[in-house]
Amino acid sequence: MDTQEFLGKAIACGTGSEPSDLVLKNTRLFSVVDGSITETDIAIVGDRIVGTHGSYSGKTEFDAGGRVVVPGFIDTHLHVESSLVTPFEFDRCVLPHGVTTAICDPHEIANVLGGEGIRYFLDSSLETVMDLRVNLSSCVPATAFETAGACLEIEDLLPYRDHPKVIGLAEFMNFPGVLARDPKVLAKLAAFQDGHIDGHAPLLSGKDLNGYLASGIRTDHEATSAAEALEKLAKGMTILIREGSVSKDLDALSSILTPDVSAFVALCTDDRNPLDIAEEGHLDSMIRRLISRGARPLDAYRAASWSAANAFGLRDRGVIAPGRRADIVVLDDVRDCRVASVISGGRIVSEALFAKRRIVDPVGLDSVKIARVEPEDFEIPASNRETRVIGVVPGRILTEDLTRTLPSVDGKMRADTDQDVLKVAVVERHKGTGNVGKGFVSGFGMTSGAIASSVGHDSHNICVVGVSDVAMAHAVNRVIAMKGGFAVADDNGVRAQLALPVAGLMSLEPFESVRHSLEDLRAAAKALGCTLPEPFLQVAFLPLPVIPHLKITDFGMFDVNKFQLVD
Amino acid sequence: MDTQEFLGKAIACGTGSEPSDLVLKNTRLFSVVDGSITETDIAIVGDRIVGTHGSYSGKTEFDAGGRVVVPGFIDTHLHVESSLVTPFEFDRCVLPHGVTTAICDPHEIANVLGGEGIRYFLDSSLETVMDLRVNLSSCVPATAFETAGACLEIEDLLPYRDHPKVIGLAEFMNFPGVLARDPKVLAKLAAFQDGHIDGHAPLLSGKDLNGYLASGIRTDHEATSAAEALEKLAKGMTILIREGSVSKDLDALSSILTPDVSAFVALCTDDRNPLDIAEEGHLDSMIRRLISRGARPLDAYRAASWSAANAFGLRDRGVIAPGRRADIVVLDDVRDCRVASVISGGRIVSEALFAKRRIVDPVGLDSVKIARVEPEDFEIPASNRETRVIGVVPGRILTEDLTRTLPSVDGKMRADTDQDVLKVAVVERHKGTGNVGKGFVSGFGMTSGAIASSVGHDSHNICVVGVSDVAMAHAVNRVIAMKGGFAVADDNGVRAQLALPVAGLMSLEPFESVRHSLEDLRAAAKALGCTLPEPFLQVAFLPLPVIPHLKITDFGMFDVNKFQLVD
Repeated sequence: MDTQEFLGKAIACGTGSEPSDLVLKNTRLFSVVDGSITETDIAIVGDRIVGTHGSYSGKTEFDAGGRVVVPGFIDTHLHVESSLVTPFEFDRCVLPHGVTTAICDPHEIANVLGGEGIRYFLDSSLETVMDLRVNLSSCVPATAFETAGACLEIEDLLPYRDHPKVIGLAEFMNFPGVLARDPKVLAKLAAFQDGHIDGHAPLLSGKDLNGYLASGIRTDHEATSAAEALEKLAKGMTILIREGSVSKDLDALSSILTPDVSAFVALCTDDRNPLDIAEEGHLDSMIRRLISRGARPLDAYRAASWSAANAFGLRDRGVIAPGRRADIVVLDDVRDCRVASVISGGRIVSEALFAKRRIVDPVGLDSVKIARVEPEDFEIPASNRETRVIGVVPGRILTEDLTRTLPSVDGKMRADTDQDVLKVAVVERHKGTGNVGKGFVSGFGMTSGAIASSVGHDSHNICVVGVSDVAMAHAVNRVIAMKGGFAVADDNGVRAQLALPVAGLMSLEPFESVRHSLEDLRAAAKALGCTLPEPFLQVAFLPLPVIPHLKITDFGMFDVNKFQLVD
Repeated sequence: MDTQEFLGKAIACGTGSEPSDLVLKNTRLFSVVDGSITETDIAIVGDRIVGTHGSYSGKTEFDAGGRVVVPGFIDTHLHVESSLVTPFEFDRCVLPHGVTTAICDPHEIANVLGGEGIRYFLDSSLETVMDLRVNLSSCVPATAFETAGACLEIEDLLPYRDHPKVIGLAEFMNFPGVLARDPKVLAKLAAFQDGHIDGHAPLLSGKDLNGYLASGIRTDHEATSAAEALEKLAKGMTILIREGSVSKDLDALSSILTPDVSAFVALCTDDRNPLDIAEEGHLDSMIRRLISRGARPLDAYRAASWSAANAFGLRDRGVIAPGRRADIVVLDDVRDCRVASVISGGRIVSEALFAKRRIVDPVGLDSVKIARVEPEDFEIPASNRETRVIGVVPGRILTEDLTRTLPSVDGKMRADTDQDVLKVAVVERHKGTGNVGKGFVSGFGMTSGAIASSVGHDSHNICVVGVSDVAMAHAVNRVIAMKGGFAVADDNGVRAQLALPVAGLMSLEPFESVRHSLEDLRAAAKALGCTLPEPFLQVAFLPLPVIPHLKITDFGMFDVNKFQLVD
């Protein structure tokens, strides 16, 4: 059916002169315009709502049983890769929580595979049931002090700018580059002036924030205090309140969601893994908690839909009204945001619907390009000096910069479990350089064994934390053998694992299996004495050299404050 | 300076490391986000705000003297032609009232000149100081029961769709065509699905409104009661509250402008002439009146700026913030909306600034393509039947359908001033058909003479109302001689006139001269006994065959309800 024919049918069905494709009978429509509730049917043709505020008949009728309906939720910023599953499993996992639009940044796969990774997401976005939108990764790699799998300059991004699923440029995390007016940064900003440029400006304020905004950036998901958010709101930004598995800002920011300001607030999860999604939920849990913390339902649901659509130029959605995209969430309970059913682009979400998708072949199945490691690869020569140690803070990606005196045996430094100081290493896995950055970390609490991960932000080399070189080698070798993944090992071998063969970041399994593997991994790490509730999340952020204070890359230990390697 | 260089400068000036081009010192910034007021400087580079909430220095500094500043006002729907001056004089007349963006529909000139008229507006829009945006006229001509100067189908509009000043498709007034699924209508709607399609749906409600909205239309300026506006708001429309010289809806609609709904309300003037603008103002007067009727200043200013920008996809404006277009209104008084100064695209508005514009040569200077008329052309043969008479309602474009018994002399029907029934005629002026539609009208109150106008919506043939055929011929012949305009005549000749030689719609004179000519015309009409406060506005809408109930075209008297000519 061409557009003209479709419009003719939509108009006819909207006037009620023809039966619609799908009618939700017997709903109570919650308005994100004024918070009122109206009893009505909702008529749908194709992916478009054509009738509200009246009685309709349809070829298919769905009895909502008097339940309240709200517009589909829009997650305004997330990395699908952090769900550890493919876009297709992400779709199947998250859409039932009411998230009918997700705006993703394929930043992780882009760091591994470059353009090939972005193409995989764009191809997949044309097939998912949810409307998966893509912001193009703006800052790959994060720094020059590590080996990444790819580097994306403006000429690498331009071929994707006009793709129908592309919104604009993703979180511009290189704010020092913006303020320093780096020509390569300016070239990216200039090319997207007429589109959207997503922000990422933690703690930026005053005139530095002004300079950053002067470049045309208008959204931010990095505010972690109400004061920070209020300055950004006053300067015209839309604040995306974030609640991920790692970074949790909802409690700190819920007070900004007032009636006057709700048009300028949206929601996002950034990074959320399937275990969290299973236990807590997704945007549905954020809405629930915002309301429980005092937000009016009007403001919470508006932020989750209309305000989000608006901030990202998605003008066809965000309200349940004729002419808008048929993204609708049917609720068992409004204040508690309990999702009963979801309609996505005019289709009732079901396993059968997911089963009909054309699945895009995964890419990067051979992205871990190194041979086995040996225990000796993790040896660290003894030193007379005190040793710099990364201090992990539970539930935060920021680290402490500690100093410890560590024991040596046979001229080699050892982990010291009495002081809770373990070895940490980053094994380069993209280019075959043989680089192994080595150092020490405190805070894991393990008394034996090792845990390794090919998810290591943002370059995604293999990061391993362990008590013994032997266990570290077991864990890393299993990750290599799986072409990426998580592994927990002791000196005798591997105790738990999760294969992540898609670019070393994502599983080929259903999200339910991944969830159970994560539970096994968590238990195995605990059995080694690990005291961190989310050890793999913590390992994954040890290599991120743009977050203070002490980090590690395949080049070695990195002092983020001085922005140089530790000598 | 290319975009990259510009961004580099904007960022540097935003951080305060370089002096900005222009700094407004000592302002009190009124936030349309939350209604707060902050003392600050405002730094500007080129057409962009780069700094707020701090102290800045600039190459040029403008001391606001502690005055409040608000974002530039956006008129979301208007016809420049109704100001009776060129886009350049409109700019000079309206921008000082704080209207930094005007979204116009060149519907009147398009009815006379077709694509040439649209091109004239697009060319002009690149030169005005204000940001003049264009929605492409969607319904030219209005009906098949008249002779228009042009006909615009989708293939005539497509060449302009991607012009940088084009927003989308203008008021889709042919709502019967939408509901009837006319293929030519569907072709237009289909071509603009990804852009904006402006609405025009007076009194449309229920399922007919749903059908209309299902086509992708999302704005409306034709609501004339709060109930009508509330239904449209509930169905996701942004309501443009209109207050023009003819149609005045502000009093009826002011109650809808509540805190929750102000993000979904914008303002427009539609048709406002220079006399009104001089006496009352423009959007500034609407804001003043909305506040005086109880709206919060936050809601009134938000509707005039951010909400308007939003509804039309103008994402670079609507708040005073770094990164946004430097459209700023400096106010002497907030509640009374008294404009002290205006900054448009980073420039302080002044006569010197207007004088620097490159003026685009006007078009359609020979659009009145007929020879002289004679008094005999207005003769109407006597009839035995009662005569249908258009009943004019002061200040409304809707008419009554009256019946009168009229005197005849020598087999000819005459005006009857005792019954206040005058002759009305529409003289075709585009194609040389010689058509003269004739009939009778009541409500003008004139006891002698005639008034004629080449502004006659929407086809803009020459419409004349008079007591005697001789005076009618004097008035029409003067309009012809002037190549368009207004004329008031008595049996001895012309008493007052205004030449409108640009397509027969717009003057070549400054708006101040036009204002004075309008005062002269009003006085001359009054001297003939005319009791209507705005006789030329009333004459101009007598030929509009899409507004009930009885109208007249060059084909003759037209029954709008039956949608056919009176036999």
